[in-house]
Amino acid sequence: MVSGRQVESGSGPIRLGMVGGGQGAFIGGVHRIAARLDGEFALVAGALSSDPERAKASAAELGLDPKRSYGSFAEMAKKEARRADGIEAVAIVTPNHMHWPAAKAFLEAGIHVVCDKPLTSNLGDAKKLAAAVEKSGKLFILTHNYTGYPMVRQAREMVRSGELGDIRVVQAEYPQDWLTERVEATGAKQAVWRTDPKQSGAGGATGDIGTHAYNLARFVTGLELDSLAADLTAFVDGRPLDDNAHVLLRFKAKGGKAPAKGMLWASQVAPGNENALKLRVYGTKGGLEWEQEHPNHLWFTPFGAEKRLITRGGAGAGASAARVSRIPPGHPEGYLEGFANIYAEAARAIRAARAGAAPDAAVIYPTVADGVEGVAFVEACVRSSRKNGAWTKL
Amino acid sequence: MVSGRQVESGSGPIRLGMVGGGQGAFIGGVHRIAARLDGEFALVAGALSSDPERAKASAAELGLDPKRSYGSFAEMAKKEARRADGIEAVAIVTPNHMHWPAAKAFLEAGIHVVCDKPLTSNLGDAKKLAAAVEKSGKLFILTHNYTGYPMVRQAREMVRSGELGDIRVVQAEYPQDWLTERVEATGAKQAVWRTDPKQSGAGGATGDIGTHAYNLARFVTGLELDSLAADLTAFVDGRPLDDNAHVLLRFKAKGGKAPAKGMLWASQVAPGNENALKLRVYGTKGGLEWEQEHPNHLWFTPFGAEKRLITRGGAGAGASAARVSRIPPGHPEGYLEGFANIYAEAARAIRAARAGAAPDAAVIYPTVADGVEGVAFVEACVRSSRKNGAWTKL
Amino acid sequence: MVSGRQVESGSGPIRLGMVGGGQGAFIGGVHRIAARLDGEFALVAGALSSDPERAKASAAELGLDPKRSYGSFAEMAKKEARRADGIEAVAIVTPNHMHWPAAKAFLEAGIHVVCDKPLTSNLGDAKKLAAAVEKSGKLFILTHNYTGYPMVRQAREMVRSGELGDIRVVQAEYPQDWLTERVEATGAKQAVWRTDPKQSGAGGATGDIGTHAYNLARFVTGLELDSLAADLTAFVDGRPLDDNAHVLLRFKAKGGKAPAKGMLWASQVAPGNENALKLRVYGTKGGLEWEQEHPNHLWFTPFGAEKRLITRGGAGAGASAARVSRIPPGHPEGYLEGFANIYAEAARAIRAARAGAAPDAAVIYPTVADGVEGVAFVEACVRSSRKNGAWTKL
Amino acid sequence: MVSGRQVESGSGPIRLGMVGGGQGAFIGGVHRIAARLDGEFALVAGALSSDPERAKASAAELGLDPKRSYGSFAEMAKKEARRADGIEAVAIVTPNHMHWPAAKAFLEAGIHVVCDKPLTSNLGDAKKLAAAVEKSGKLFILTHNYTGYPMVRQAREMVRSGELGDIRVVQAEYPQDWLTERVEATGAKQAVWRTDPKQSGAGGATGDIGTHAYNLARFVTGLELDSLAADLTAFVDGRPLDDNAHVLLRFKAKGGKAPAKGMLWASQVAPGNENALKLRVYGTKGGLEWEQEHPNHLWFTPFGAEKRLITRGGAGAGASAARVSRIPPGHPEGYLEGFANIYAEAARAIRAARAGAAPDAAVIYPTVADGVEGVAFVEACVRSSRKNGAWTKL
Repeated sequence: MVSGRQVESGSGPIRLGMVGGGQGAFIGGVHRIAARLDGEFALVAGALSSDPERAKASAAELGLDPKRSYGSFAEMAKKEARRADGIEAVAIVTPNHMHWPAAKAFLEAGIHVVCDKPLTSNLGDAKKLAAAVEKSGKLFILTHNYTGYPMVRQAREMVRSGELGDIRVVQAEYPQDWLTERVEATGAKQAVWRTDPKQSGAGGATGDIGTHAYNLARFVTGLELDSLAADLTAFVDGRPLDDNAHVLLRFKAKGGKAPAKGMLWASQVAPGNENALKLRVYGTKGGLEWEQEHPNHLWFTPFGAEKRLITRGGAGAGASAARVSRIPPGHPEGYLEGFANIYAEAARAIRAARAGAAPDAAVIYPTVADGVEGVAFVEACVRSSRKNGAWTKL
Repeated sequence: MVSGRQVESGSGPIRLGMVGGGQGAFIGGVHRIAARLDGEFALVAGALSSDPERAKASAAELGLDPKRSYGSFAEMAKKEARRADGIEAVAIVTPNHMHWPAAKAFLEAGIHVVCDKPLTSNLGDAKKLAAAVEKSGKLFILTHNYTGYPMVRQAREMVRSGELGDIRVVQAEYPQDWLTERVEATGAKQAVWRTDPKQSGAGGATGDIGTHAYNLARFVTGLELDSLAADLTAFVDGRPLDDNAHVLLRFKAKGGKAPAKGMLWASQVAPGNENALKLRVYGTKGGLEWEQEHPNHLWFTPFGAEKRLITRGGAGAGASAARVSRIPPGHPEGYLEGFANIYAEAARAIRAARAGAAPDAAVIYPTVADGVEGVAFVEACVRSSRKNGAWTKL
Repeated sequence: MVSGRQVESGSGPIRLGMVGGGQGAFIGGVHRIAARLDGEFALVAGALSSDPERAKASAAELGLDPKRSYGSFAEMAKKEARRADGIEAVAIVTPNHMHWPAAKAFLEAGIHVVCDKPLTSNLGDAKKLAAAVEKSGKLFILTHNYTGYPMVRQAREMVRSGELGDIRVVQAEYPQDWLTERVEATGAKQAVWRTDPKQSGAGGATGDIGTHAYNLARFVTGLELDSLAADLTAFVDGRPLDDNAHVLLRFKAKGGKAPAKGMLWASQVAPGNENALKLRVYGTKGGLEWEQEHPNHLWFTPFGAEKRLITRGGAGAGASAARVSRIPPGHPEGYLEGFANIYAEAARAIRAARAGAAPDAAVIYPTVADGVEGVAFVEACVRSSRKNGAWTKL
Repeated sequence: MVSGRQVESGSGPIRLGMVGGGQGAFIGGVHRIAARLDGEFALVAGALSSDPERAKASAAELGLDPKRSYGSFAEMAKKEARRADGIEAVAIVTPNHMHWPAAKAFLEAGIHVVCDKPLTSNLGDAKKLAAAVEKSGKLFILTHNYTGYPMVRQAREMVRSGELGDIRVVQAEYPQDWLTERVEATGAKQAVWRTDPKQSGAGGATGDIGTHAYNLARFVTGLELDSLAADLTAFVDGRPLDDNAHVLLRFKAKGGKAPAKGMLWASQVAPGNENALKLRVYGTKGGLEWEQEHPNHLWFTPFGAEKRLITRGGAGAGASAARVSRIPPGHPEGYLEGFANIYAEAARAIRAARAGAAPDAAVIYPTVADGVEGVAFVEACVRSSRKNGAWTKL
C-alpha cells in the first residue's frame, strides 16, 4: 500500500512550448497529459498547427495566451528565446519530416527539446540532428514512451543483473490492425501522414511501430545489433509504405559468448491486435515476457523453477520499477503514466540543468543517439528488403 | 486510432483546496494527479495534515503559497471563503471520521466538495451530511472512483439498454492481501487508521473496500438492495475491525420480475490478491464480467452466442465509454485515469454551476446519496453479522 | 519431457459392467472412456437403459455380447455374479434416484461399485448405502472426478504440507449456463432428470454441481464443515429445483486456530460460464487458485513473494501430481484424463483386493463417506434455505 | 450439454501392432492411449525395442502375447502378415531414421501404417516412402497430432469458408525449453536421439517441432509455400543440430491476390515455454489465434467487430469441430484427445478399406504427402541457413 515516488516538486513548473498537436492530432494530447500529470510542466506557448486557423482555435481551446500562439515554429523559437519567461523546453509532436527543422530551431535558440519518435524521416537528418544536439549543449529527449513503463525498467534491470544469464533469443512484435483497410483514402489524418513517404520517411509500419519494438528490445537487453534481414510488405493496394514488416535479427556477440538472435514483427494489418507490443527475452538461465496491453505484469521464468508473475509494486519488483511508479500494486498504471515517466525523467534532467548540476545517473530517457539508431534501423530494413532480405548492417 | 474527448477547457482551471493528503498519505496524491490530469483544477490551498509541521512541509513540497497552507480545515474554509480568488472546491481526503465535519465547514462556506469514500464513519453523520448538502445547494462528489472506468460505464449502459435481459445474479468481490499480517502494529499509517474503529467506523474491509464493491454493483445494475446477510470476521488476532466480509444479497424486484440475488466478498487477508475488485452480472439474456486489474476489457456473454471481449475504444464500446476515454484502444488506461474521470465529471458540473447553467444529464458522478447508501450498507453488514447473519434491511 | 506413470498393467483388464449410459446419455460415455484410457478395464456387460429397445441398441453399438446386455440391473447383478467370468466391478451412471437400489444389488452380489455423484437422491438412501458398503466388504468409488486432476492433488498436498499456513478463507464456485432457459420443457434428457425432484432429489444446481464444489473444497483443504447458510433460488419459471445456490460456509476450528470461513456459489443460469468450477484457498502464509477449465495450472501465491504458476509436470509440481499425470508439461491433460484417474485409482484398489493385498495408502478416491457428506450438504442447503438462510449443521 | 460423437463402434477393434515405444520412450505411450481411447484399436503385437530384453519386458508390461513380441520389425511384418488374425495396422514410433525401413516392410506386407512425424530423416527416404505407399495401396497416416484438435479443425473451416477474407500474414511459433541445457550429455533418451543427426536427420528443433508448426500453418490456411529464409542456430555448445530456428515464409499467391507472408519460430531453448505451439492467421476480413496449451479456445477477430472467443462445443463452433469432440464445452479436452482424433480418423479410413468402401471425404488425417512436405521444409531450412538465409524453394 506504499506508493512510489511523486515528482510534484514545489519549485515551479518548467515552461513548455509545443510544435504540432493541434485539433485532430493524437499524440499531441498525449504529450500534454504526460507533461501535466506530475505537475512538472506548464504549457505556455505553441505553434500547434501549420494551418493558422487550426493553430489559433487549438491554442484557445488549451487556454494559451493568444500572443504565445505562433504561426510557425521558427517564429516561436525566435520570440520565446527573447522572453524572460520564455519556454525552457519544447515538445515536437509533428509528422516525422518536421522533427529535424523544428528541433534545429529550438536547439539553436537554446531551448531543450522533447521530440516524438521516430527521430526524423531519414538518416541524413537524424545525423544532422545528433550533431546539432551535441553542438547546442541542450537536452534532447526522444519519447520512446514504452521505456517509461515500470515493468520495462524492471526487465532491463533483471537482464543487467544477470538473472537471465547470457541472452540467446529476443522476440519482439508489435501488431496493430487499424490500417487493415485503406483508411488513408478517407482522409483520416493519422493514417494520411503515416502512409505518406514525404512525411513519414521510407518506413511505414517499420518506422511508426517497428522502431518502438526495436528500441524496446535494445533498451531491455542492452544488446547491439549486428545485422538484419527484412521482408517488408504493403498489403493494402495503393499504399506506398510497408504495413507489415518481418525482420530477422542478429546481435553482436558480447564477451566471447554466442551472439543472440531474434525476430521482429511489426504489422498494422493484423485484425484483432490493437496495440499489442510484446517483448520476450530468453537467456541461458531464464526468460522474461512483457506485453504492453498488460503493462503492470512481467513474467519471469527462471529455467527449472516455477513461472513467476512479477507485478508493478509487488514482491519481486525492485527499485528501478518503484522509481517510476506512482500507486500501489493492483491499481493499474497505463500508457499515459508510462509516457509521463519520460516527462518526469526529462523534468529531473532539466531541473538539474537549470541548477547547473551534473546529470543524475539514475535518470534514464531515450536520447538522440537512440533516435539515430532507430532511423538507421528503418533504413536498413528498407535496404535489406529491396535486396530480397539480404543481411544488412545498420 | 481516434481518441475520445479531452477536457482541457481553456476557460481557466477550477481553484481547488485539499484537506488531508500530506506526506505519508496515499489517496491524497491520487486525488492531486486526478485533479491535474485534464488540466481542469489548480490546487491552490490546503490543510494537508493535522500535524502542523507535516502540513507545512507538505505544502512546500507541493509549491502551495505558504499563506494558503492552513493549520485546520475550519480556518481554511473561513479564510478561503473570504478571498476573491478563494477555492471553488475542496477535496477531502482524510480518514473517514473527519469527512463529515470537514465537509460541513466547506459546504457552509459555499464551497463545492469532492470527498473520498466511505462518506462518513457512521450513518448518523452520513445523514447529517446529506442534509447539509441539500441545504447548501453546493455540489458534492464522492470519489467512488471505480465508476469512472470507461468499461464500467459501458457495462452500466449495456444493462440499462436491456442487453442482459432481466438481471438474476450479481457476484461482486474485492479481495486484497495487504492486511494478511498485523501490519498496523508496525505503525504503518495506511493500516493504522483503517483498522481503528474511531477513524474508520464500524466496518473494516467492509467499509474500506466492501463499499466500493457494493457501489459498483449498484452503479452497473441499477438494482436496489432489499436486504443482506453478512458474516464478518477479523482473522488477524487483535484486530478490532473485520478484515473479511462474506455477504449474501437480495435485491428488490423490478417490474414484477423475480428479484435478483447476489454475493459480495471483501477481504484484506487473501494472499495473492492486490486490488482484485471484480463484478459479474448475469441476466436472462447474457452476462458481463469486469475486473479492475484489467480495466480496459469487458466480457459480454450473450446467451447462446460466442463470448465477446469488448475493449475500451474498440468495436462494441459505445458512447458512454468513449465519453470518459482519452486514448485509443490498446493503449491501456488505468486507475488514475478512472479516478480522473470523477474529477472531469466534477469539473463539468462545477463549470455548469459557475455559469448558472442547468446540470448536464450526461454528467455522472457518485453523490452524497450514494454515500449514505454505502454507510448504511456497512452498518447493515455489522448488524446482520452480530445477529448471526440474519437478513437485514439497510 | 519425462512422462508420469502409466497403468497399462499386463495382468489382464478388470471386467466391468455398466448400469445406465445408453444412447442419449452424457456421463456414461465419459465413464467408458475413462475406464478404457489406461487399458485397465474391459466393459463386458450392461443394463444400459430402462427402455429395452434402447438398451439393446446401445449394447450393440458398444459391441457387447447380446447375452450380457440385461433388461435390468437386478438381472445383471444376479446373472453376472454366477458367471466364472462375471464382472468384477460395475459402473452406475443412472439418474441419482437409482444409485442406491442399483448399488445395493451389486454390493450384495459381491461386486465392486463405481458410482456417479451425487451418491443418492436423499440422505436416508445415502446412509443405507454406506451401511451396505460396510457390510459387503466391497470397494465403493464415487466419481467426484475433479479430485482426479493432478493440480488438485498438488493443491491438496500443498495445504497438507503447510505451505499455506492456517487456512482462513475458502471460495468455491461452480457456474454454468446451460439451464438459463427452460430447456427441460423441450424434453432434453440431461435437463429433464436434473430438474426433476423425483430423479435428482431435493437439490438442483446444489446437487448436480454444488456437491462437486463442496467436495473439492473439502478434498483440497481437509477442513470439516461446521454449518452453512444457504439461499437457493429457481430463477427459471416453473422449475421445481434450484438453479442457483448462494451458500456461506463455516468450517470447524482445527487445533485452536480461528475457524475458516467460505462461500460457495453454484449456478446453472450464469450466461458465459460453461463449466467454470473454481477453488480459491487462502491461509496465513499464502494462497492457491485453481480453475477446472485450465486444469493444468495452479496459482500459488505465497504472501510477500511473487505469484507462482505451477504447471502439471513442471517445476514445483510434486509427486502427488506426477502420480496421476500421463504426459509432459505443456501437453494439456483434460477432463477425461482427470476422470480416468479415478478409474486408475479404482483399478489399483481392485487389483489389490483381487490379490488379497492391503490397500495402498497412496491410492486416493472419493468414498461412500464422501458421498454421504455430499448428500447431507445438499439437504442442509435445502433446510437452511427454507429457514430463510439460518445457519444449519449437516 | 450435447456431446459430440463417439466412435465406439461395435464391429470389433482394429488389430494394431507397434514398432518402438518400449520402456523409456515417450511417444509410444501416447500412441497407445490414443489408439485405445475410443475403443477402436486393440494392440496385439509389437517390436517394442531394438534391445531384446527391453522389448520383452515392455511387451510383458503391456500384456502382449509373448509370441507376438518380436525381435525386429522385419520379423513382425513377415509373421503377422501370415496370421489370419494378424495386425491390420502398425504404429511406427521409433526415432526418425527408422520410419522409412519399418514403414516399407509393413506396406509391402499389406499392412496399413500409422507413423510418427517427421516422416523420415531425409528427403530421399521420404520420397521413396511416398512411392511405396502409392504402390502398396495401403493407408498411411502421419501423426501430426495437432491437426486433431477440434479448434484447429474449426480454424481451418473458418479460413476455407472465407471468414478471414484473403490471408495476408501467418505467424507460427513453437517454443519449448527442455533443451536449454545440454541434457543429452546426461544420456536422457528423449534428448539423445533428437540431437543426433543420424537418428533425427538434418534438423533439430526444426525437425522435431518446426515441422509441427509448419504443418499446422498449412493445415489451417491451405496455403502452399513458395520459399523460405532460415537462420538456424545451435545455442548449446557441442550440440550438432539446431535448437532454435528463425524462418521467414513466403506463400504462393492464390487467385491473383497478393501472396501471404509469415514467420515461423521453433525453439527448444526458451525458458518458461513448455509446449507453446501457437498459430495466428490474419486476413483482409479478420484474424484467428490458437494456442496448443489452451486448445479448447479459438479467438476470432473479425475486423471492426468485438473479439470473439469460440469454445469447443460452444456457440460459434461448427460441425468440423463437433465431429472430433467427445464432451461438452467447458470440460477441457487435451493433447491425448487431439492425438486420439488422428487414430479415430484412421479407424474410419481403415474400416472403410476393410469394407471395400470408398474413402469418406469428411475423414481428415495427415498423409504421406504432408510428410514429404515436412521433410522438404526441414531440408530447405537447412539449405537456406547454410546459404546465410537465402530465399529457398522447397
